[in-house]
Amino acid sequence: MTFRLHNFFRSSTSTRLRAALNLKGIAYEYVPYALRKGETRTPEFLALNPAGLVPVLESDDGQVLVQSLAIIEWLDETQPGPRLLPEGADGRARVRALSYMIACEIHPLNNLRVLTRLTEQFGADEAAQKAWFTEWVETTFDPLEIMLAQDSRTGRFCHGDTPGLADCCLYAQVWNNRRFDIDTSRWPTIARIFDAADALPAFREAAPAHQPDAV
Amino acid sequence: MTFRLHNFFRSSTSTRLRAALNLKGIAYEYVPYALRKGETRTPEFLALNPAGLVPVLESDDGQVLVQSLAIIEWLDETQPGPRLLPEGADGRARVRALSYMIACEIHPLNNLRVLTRLTEQFGADEAAQKAWFTEWVETTFDPLEIMLAQDSRTGRFCHGDTPGLADCCLYAQVWNNRRFDIDTSRWPTIARIFDAADALPAFREAAPAHQPDAV
Repeated sequence: MTFRLHNFFRSSTSTRLRAALNLKGIAYEYVPYALRKGETRTPEFLALNPAGLVPVLESDDGQVLVQSLAIIEWLDETQPGPRLLPEGADGRARVRALSYMIACEIHPLNNLRVLTRLTEQFGADEAAQKAWFTEWVETTFDPLEIMLAQDSRTGRFCHGDTPGLADCCLYAQVWNNRRFDIDTSRWPTIARIFDAADALPAFREAAPAHQPDAV
Repeated sequence: MTFRLHNFFRSSTSTRLRAALNLKGIAYEYVPYALRKGETRTPEFLALNPAGLVPVLESDDGQVLVQSLAIIEWLDETQPGPRLLPEGADGRARVRALSYMIACEIHPLNNLRVLTRLTEQFGADEAAQKAWFTEWVETTFDPLEIMLAQDSRTGRFCHGDTPGLADCCLYAQVWNNRRFDIDTSRWPTIARIFDAADALPAFREAAPAHQPDAV
């Protein structure tokens, strides 16, 4: 099966999906969209994903998948390569919970369309956007640090010594945090896991700065 | 196995989890927390969930599960009762994507702590909160309606004729929308699925208004 990845270099959800594809050793065609230029609002793209959001993964058998976490679970269930979720239900519940803390509590509040809306509705300037962004990172990274540091199931990565779904989310979020110069050293376990991921080509090659559309 | 559900009647994530528990026929002890009174910020609760968020599902064997979607997947993998996710990977990817559209694109932007933050940081009044809330519901319910209406896999419920994970999310979000009097008739397929769910005791008994701590 061959894949086309419709995505954007800086999009955090795209970054986590690129990391997952790389970890599983799945090659893909890279199709970039410039969000600020409205390239995901064209009739062609909306036919692919009515929500107008990246990433979208398209396979050569006509499958069109949306929502990064749903795509990663699908890849893990159908494609060869290392498993990104643990075998046991308890481990899977933990990895999903850590992932959703980032995917449901941080990212949705801090993406481009939300920051833009803050400016449109409330006149938020760059400093106000940064305060907002930082608030939601700290609100969830503080307890995430506790949950990682205090649980013996945490290893070199979020769950054991092999990277998986939660690490993809963590890696993408720490990259996203750089947009507002948020210092990861406040969260030593998160910082350590980010560094362990960043040492692997699968993650490093998924990083925003290393994509063909990076500016 | 017996369960204690730490939750709050109006919390949308609690509602979706209650619906899932009811659909699977799992009884639970109901433990209410008044969010506005800070009852999830006590040392006792933070020991249970460092993020200070409901819902938390505690089992009699000492398992403590957080994040509603991770809990529902765990219940579906480990407990008897009707399956809330389809058998095939493609169906699961669709149901998860529909669920995450609500859980990652609407709910995180519209919960109590975010609305409170809008007021604290930007002085948002009730009308400004309503404009914000409505914006994010429409931004995602519009494409969700298209994806449900145009896909032959949609049946009486989001995916086929039996209720599952996506219906739990949809049902809870439509209830949440009532807080700002958002009219569901703009989205006929969503409205129809909500009505189908609301006709079932499993959903109706999970609704905010029917909980012991409802005010």
